[in-house]
Amino acid sequence: MHIPTPPANVVAWLPDRRGIRVLDQRALPLAETYVDVQTLDELVHAIRTLTVRGAPAIGVAAAMGVAGVYAHERAPGRARLAAIAHAVAEARPTAVNLRWAITRLLDRAAQAPDDELVHALAHEAQCIHGEDVAMCVAIGEAGAALLHPGMCVLTHCNAGALATAGIGTALAPVYVAHARGVPLTVYADETRPLLQGARLTAWELQRAGIPVTVLPDGAAASLLARGVIDAVFVGADRIAANGDTANKVGTYPLALAARAHGVPFHVCAPWSTVDVATRDGAAIEIEQRHRDELAFAGDRRVLPDGVPVYNPAFDVTPRALVTHYITDRGVVTPPFLL
Amino acid sequence: MHIPTPPANVVAWLPDRRGIRVLDQRALPLAETYVDVQTLDELVHAIRTLTVRGAPAIGVAAAMGVAGVYAHERAPGRARLAAIAHAVAEARPTAVNLRWAITRLLDRAAQAPDDELVHALAHEAQCIHGEDVAMCVAIGEAGAALLHPGMCVLTHCNAGALATAGIGTALAPVYVAHARGVPLTVYADETRPLLQGARLTAWELQRAGIPVTVLPDGAAASLLARGVIDAVFVGADRIAANGDTANKVGTYPLALAARAHGVPFHVCAPWSTVDVATRDGAAIEIEQRHRDELAFAGDRRVLPDGVPVYNPAFDVTPRALVTHYITDRGVVTPPFLL
Repeated sequence: MHIPTPPANVVAWLPDRRGIRVLDQRALPLAETYVDVQTLDELVHAIRTLTVRGAPAIGVAAAMGVAGVYAHERAPGRARLAAIAHAVAEARPTAVNLRWAITRLLDRAAQAPDDELVHALAHEAQCIHGEDVAMCVAIGEAGAALLHPGMCVLTHCNAGALATAGIGTALAPVYVAHARGVPLTVYADETRPLLQGARLTAWELQRAGIPVTVLPDGAAASLLARGVIDAVFVGADRIAANGDTANKVGTYPLALAARAHGVPFHVCAPWSTVDVATRDGAAIEIEQRHRDELAFAGDRRVLPDGVPVYNPAFDVTPRALVTHYITDRGVVTPPFLL
Repeated sequence: MHIPTPPANVVAWLPDRRGIRVLDQRALPLAETYVDVQTLDELVHAIRTLTVRGAPAIGVAAAMGVAGVYAHERAPGRARLAAIAHAVAEARPTAVNLRWAITRLLDRAAQAPDDELVHALAHEAQCIHGEDVAMCVAIGEAGAALLHPGMCVLTHCNAGALATAGIGTALAPVYVAHARGVPLTVYADETRPLLQGARLTAWELQRAGIPVTVLPDGAAASLLARGVIDAVFVGADRIAANGDTANKVGTYPLALAARAHGVPFHVCAPWSTVDVATRDGAAIEIEQRHRDELAFAGDRRVLPDGVPVYNPAFDVTPRALVTHYITDRGVVTPPFLL
């Protein structure tokens, strides 16, 4: 089996695992620069400022970061570890993977003797990294079965390598098929307001040598109407027990347009994204993002002062519009039970 | 009958009709500035650089502009008039209203004696202006019947006062209802890539005292799903004989989402937008716009070098998704015949 190499090194150890090096995603696509993180302040800053972003990547960076920062500490100890872990966990309040990774690290630390603490943390963080890489490959293997030579795939936002430690979620099937020599073309919604499609998805696919074309979100429906697209692949931020799926805003209208033109619409996500405690999409709370995301284009103000915005981070795609749920457990079908 | 005042003076005469003054829409919403146009170069520049934009507004500005520039000429004459008219007609090759207005002006000039040429041009241009104002009011009257107190209206792009000499097309019903004391709220898609919704629609509605909220295009479907929107009003660039409608890209997915949630979807346009020679939407050629519109956010590059774009100016909404066609001849129903 040919496992594709991720097109970017989102997070890596510094020498002796005394810190981490993260790709600065804020600088993309203009520059490929890396930030070295060895102190608590540097780690919190990297997470808070979106130097590293994407739920799986944040979890991995937090785990490796806490282990690396702790190893670099001049005055280590369990109290200091707890303080580091707490500060990192709070860096982005709504990031579930972040707190999950930190909790797992602390559980492991609690079982380790004092003189093995540094090693135990690094080992656990490395496991989290490895599991993330494997999760991506498993999604890729399951989804690649749906891709055939010459197909055109449409995606939204960035659920690619840059959002994980591996080859991504929604883009994993594309990378696996590409590594097997299956020629594909990807169309990427630019994804307003933060333009992750233009800035990140286009960058990583170009780097991997996969043809990619970027379009305004509003142009996806006419592209589907033209018959250009064979399948839509998107990620997910939360999947309810009935299959309703929260993902980056703009996913739902894409699903409606795909259905109108008979194009398969696939949701790709780690099984951990399935929240069996959430009954359906109506129970998913949607975060409202800041007005400035719409008020400025680059440094230029484009919205009149005093005009309010409706700027939800996510929307909900109902189960009926999803063709397949592609996870690291394979293709699964709702309702989802424990 | 209470006729609402347009919230902006898009084009007006300079003293003695020796030139025109146009609102500089490139500066909106940051500044309300006006540009005086008295020479041929200034007029071509104003049209070419989108200082004035919107098909009806361009037609009116071209007619008044040619009349004003000619009146300001030091060495007038029919040869010079022909040269001015030709240069202005070529300023934006695809603007139908532009050439229609120029042709009408030249036809009128051909009937006028030499010593009445300046007056005849100004008179004809003033007629074109007045007819545009009346067209907007007629659309507004027809559409206002569909608006009731407390309704929330969603619109796309700018088919408002800034696109005409009057109160707009898609927004005309809103202005008429507002003038009658009907409280309404408008939601405006920001409208990528050129952000006419954020920059222009929000500006003119705020100025008119009508509550307006701006959203990313991809958030419209979830807003419709929430039951917030009572009706969608959009403009049209061309309406085929069967009712298929070309309008700013992003209109079609809005129509799909409106249909999915049982929300009426209305197309507002002057009757002159109906092209009976175009059988259906498949016969409408769609212009591709420049890559730079997606490659930059303000002055900042957001797309990797070498990544191509799919950036159509318009999309086509099929007749089946349109609830009402609201024109200056009232509410009309396809198929449209001569």
